[in-house]
Amino acid sequence: MVIIGEKINATRKKIAAALEARDARAIIQAAAEQADAGADYLDLNGGDPREGRETKNMEWLIGLVQEHTDLPVAVDSANPEAVEVGLSKARKKPILNSISLEQDRLDPLLPLVGKHECMVVALLMSDGGTPHGVDDRVQNAEKLIGRLTSAGKEIDEIIVDPCFLPISVDPASGRAVVDAIAAIRAKWPELHIGGGLSNISYGLPQRRCVNLAALAQCIYAGMDYAIVDPCMEGIVSTILAAEALAGRDEFCMNYVMRMR
Amino acid sequence: MVIIGEKINATRKKIAAALEARDARAIIQAAAEQADAGADYLDLNGGDPREGRETKNMEWLIGLVQEHTDLPVAVDSANPEAVEVGLSKARKKPILNSISLEQDRLDPLLPLVGKHECMVVALLMSDGGTPHGVDDRVQNAEKLIGRLTSAGKEIDEIIVDPCFLPISVDPASGRAVVDAIAAIRAKWPELHIGGGLSNISYGLPQRRCVNLAALAQCIYAGMDYAIVDPCMEGIVSTILAAEALAGRDEFCMNYVMRMR
Repeated sequence: MVIIGEKINATRKKIAAALEARDARAIIQAAAEQADAGADYLDLNGGDPREGRETKNMEWLIGLVQEHTDLPVAVDSANPEAVEVGLSKARKKPILNSISLEQDRLDPLLPLVGKHECMVVALLMSDGGTPHGVDDRVQNAEKLIGRLTSAGKEIDEIIVDPCFLPISVDPASGRAVVDAIAAIRAKWPELHIGGGLSNISYGLPQRRCVNLAALAQCIYAGMDYAIVDPCMEGIVSTILAAEALAGRDEFCMNYVMRMR
Repeated sequence: MVIIGEKINATRKKIAAALEARDARAIIQAAAEQADAGADYLDLNGGDPREGRETKNMEWLIGLVQEHTDLPVAVDSANPEAVEVGLSKARKKPILNSISLEQDRLDPLLPLVGKHECMVVALLMSDGGTPHGVDDRVQNAEKLIGRLTSAGKEIDEIIVDPCFLPISVDPASGRAVVDAIAAIRAKWPELHIGGGLSNISYGLPQRRCVNLAALAQCIYAGMDYAIVDPCMEGIVSTILAAEALAGRDEFCMNYVMRMR
């Protein structure tokens, strides 16, 4: 299981303030605590609607994070200029988070994904909207994988994000996304599958509990990348336990070593 | 999801002492706290190797528990005399926990299961040993369901226990049991599936974490009965969350009502 730490994100107040003030300490701390908690990548999102600002944020974030940790980064942006800066400055093979079938995202980002040595999160959204079932997810995956491999990506450089929707809005959507993961895993054994699943618990009380149960179910179905806060209680231990249960941790060595 | 509270069990020191001293208060407390935590049934195990003692324990336990709660009971014994007493004294339709394909358990218990109005846990053990894969579990289920329906049970009076084995001993056994639950659920939609799954984490550190992830995965696969300690932190909330995710809680009403 590969854990992408999600904490360095401008939608979080603390990070937005740190970006605004160029407060390096807050960013370094968020990087260090995620590394300590078991993150394999650090997601960097410097989103800002002001002209040119997101690119500057990305440049600052990636420089800072690479100076203070050895972890590779996930360049979290849909802004082609910020993406270009993130992907070029990355010292270790980065992840672009994310591309989708939406034309205004696909057209500008696909050439960048093809040009740079990187992995890419392939979100199954299209201009037709969000997929809700198993079949539409598999169809979107097929199309997007086709576009990405034509642009030069290998199948194992792609991380399909199946779109996690709130079960509070559509009660069938929890089972649908887990079933879709299983169907996609069966069809493309070498593909990676993952994403930020916390949206699944939107609108519910005690969301952590729903997120952990969802993690366990998705890992059983074949998810192997997760965009999560590894510092949140239970996240890493649930991932380790679910992997051992799914037969992906020989003799539970990884679970035992890290839980002791 | 039906929760069978497992705490009134003579293998626990506190309960063994209460049985020995006929300390009603300890039993009533264990019953009350499980009822409060969300148990639908109370498992009663008065196991004692001394001649005639288990039957007397069962008689005392069931009288006491029925006097102080309204919950139905699960008669947890392989001793035919204790089973007979438990099933006859039950005021609400009880569960027998458990019958299996092992001849020395099946032969004496099958007539009792046929005679009494009860549900029955059908453990997939046989004289050939413990099933380890999907196919042997499905085959054992087929045989045991056949014996039970011939004895007069309806398919929805049977709770198949797929045998939860420690993943620390066989790393493939976690996936195998979840896959088996999915296969059994697909073959017999009206059957119940469940059991005491905590054995799955035997030999590992921080077992609660493995048990909760296993619960979430088994519920996704189709488990609908669980023999657990509902007072243990995270058990009931994980069950409620996993059911909502599996699409078995319309508009998450049950989750929302009980988690608020």
